Amino acid sequence: MKYAVLATWKMALEGTRKAAALLKEGEHSGRAIVEGITMVEDEPSFHSVGFGGRPNAEGRVFLDGGYMDGDTLHFGAVGSIENFRSAVRIAYSLQEGDANNFLVGEGAERYAEEHGFEKRDNVTEEAMELYMKEKDRLQELSAYDGHDTVCFLALDQNGTLCAATSTSGLFMKQPGRVGDTPLPGVGYYADSKVGAAAATGMGEEIMKGALSYAAIRMMKDGMSAQEAAETAVFELDRELKERNGHANPMSLIVLAKDGSCGIGTNVSFTWCYASDTEEAAVHEITLP
Amino acid sequence: MKYAVLATWKMALEGTRKAAALLKEGEHSGRAIVEGITMVEDEPSFHSVGFGGRPNAEGRVFLDGGYMDGDTLHFGAVGSIENFRSAVRIAYSLQEGDANNFLVGEGAERYAEEHGFEKRDNVTEEAMELYMKEKDRLQELSAYDGHDTVCFLALDQNGTLCAATSTSGLFMKQPGRVGDTPLPGVGYYADSKVGAAAATGMGEEIMKGALSYAAIRMMKDGMSAQEAAETAVFELDRELKERNGHANPMSLIVLAKDGSCGIGTNVSFTWCYASDTEEAAVHEITLP
Repeated sequence: MKYAVLATWKMALEGTRKAAALLKEGEHSGRAIVEGITMVEDEPSFHSVGFGGRPNAEGRVFLDGGYMDGDTLHFGAVGSIENFRSAVRIAYSLQEGDANNFLVGEGAERYAEEHGFEKRDNVTEEAMELYMKEKDRLQELSAYDGHDTVCFLALDQNGTLCAATSTSGLFMKQPGRVGDTPLPGVGYYADSKVGAAAATGMGEEIMKGALSYAAIRMMKDGMSAQEAAETAVFELDRELKERNGHANPMSLIVLAKDGSCGIGTNVSFTWCYASDTEEAAVHEITLP
Repeated sequence: MKYAVLATWKMALEGTRKAAALLKEGEHSGRAIVEGITMVEDEPSFHSVGFGGRPNAEGRVFLDGGYMDGDTLHFGAVGSIENFRSAVRIAYSLQEGDANNFLVGEGAERYAEEHGFEKRDNVTEEAMELYMKEKDRLQELSAYDGHDTVCFLALDQNGTLCAATSTSGLFMKQPGRVGDTPLPGVGYYADSKVGAAAATGMGEEIMKGALSYAAIRMMKDGMSAQEAAETAVFELDRELKERNGHANPMSLIVLAKDGSCGIGTNVSFTWCYASDTEEAAVHEITLP
């Protein structure tokens, strides 16, 4: 494959098409996926990312995002930021330098403001209606209600693999809650010598097994992208069920350095893929 | 070994002795190491943890901490919190429940206040003097000036392995900066079936290779604690040098389920160890 892009959930289709078009023109994989994710962040009908994202327990929308470059292993990330257009663009800018690459809360917001990142009130009328309807039955909510992180992985024509993520996090999350999405090695990982991986689902489960790094480690040890994605998810799912009696939803996408992809999931899951030989399309796994 | 405790840096000696005494009485490994770490947090002459910790770029002390239970894989963590006595005690309390286990910034501070955690101004006169002296030559500071996280690992008499961490983070860090210390899989990891690991050094380097999880993964695949600790650190050190021309300091402690320990480091490093057959003592690796 000359280039390829793989992304979580069908909401990523237009962004996948955009990223693939940029990769075709020779764009860097990191810049291509940041463009793809921004399209998802900007679309208010996608309820788990950016504008129109699901509110926290206080009716406010806080964003998390991460970015990793598989050539340098440098990453950038933000956690728990409010009122900015694009978590992933801020994360991308934070990859520079050896320190202060992961910023959270008010410090992250001040950084973003000082560096001129676009502001936006991400609370839509529709999200607020949902919040008002659901807020009194918080205890009944399924753990999987509303935390569909958008993750993009890409291989560019120079062989560079990058990973990026963005989410408004768990619906009705507590103030200050950060999930797996901005955590390198946990919510995403990229190593151009091996592959890239990123996770969506219940962040707190994914954090119990450093899921993205786990898959890349397995590929280093010889597994294919598909074997690694399945093994990483099924192993953690099994351990959690054995120890705690249940495992919450987790899905993992993996892109190998040859452009082949792998999907591991313990729930029904959709993803998007495009390459120099395949048009952007939605794919699906339906579990019984 | 009936029980064992392993901790980073010689500052952990008294805490190691305390944790070992608790383990001898049959205490749970998690509670024993939280007691050990709290002793380090409370001592103002230790300049990288809790009271007397190194200030950030604005002269304020913000704390990070994490905790993981190797039986359940549950974790708790806080990032970028100010004016509390013990980051690790708050982290420990956050292990309960399936969600909202990692809280940062103002949300984390409100949680801690609402749950009655002791408050404390952690800025000492000595730390402020250091800050005033150094703040104008921030650019010259070595990357390793002041980020010695205290990490404790323990095996208790029931075979439970736990990991816990606490730090005031990188000296002169940017507001909102979070390092590896509160990130499960990155700054610490525990799996009672395999081992526990935790990292200290330049957090942003450790985050490029999910160092704690990497070592436990290698032990799952058959390595001893010592082999895993060395392999995880040396492999990441080599990759960073090859890709970026340099690698910042990283040290990793690993405790196996049989109580044996392993140390991996690319700098001179001290650690403390105690078990039912060994008195608490400081050990050292001096690199040329």
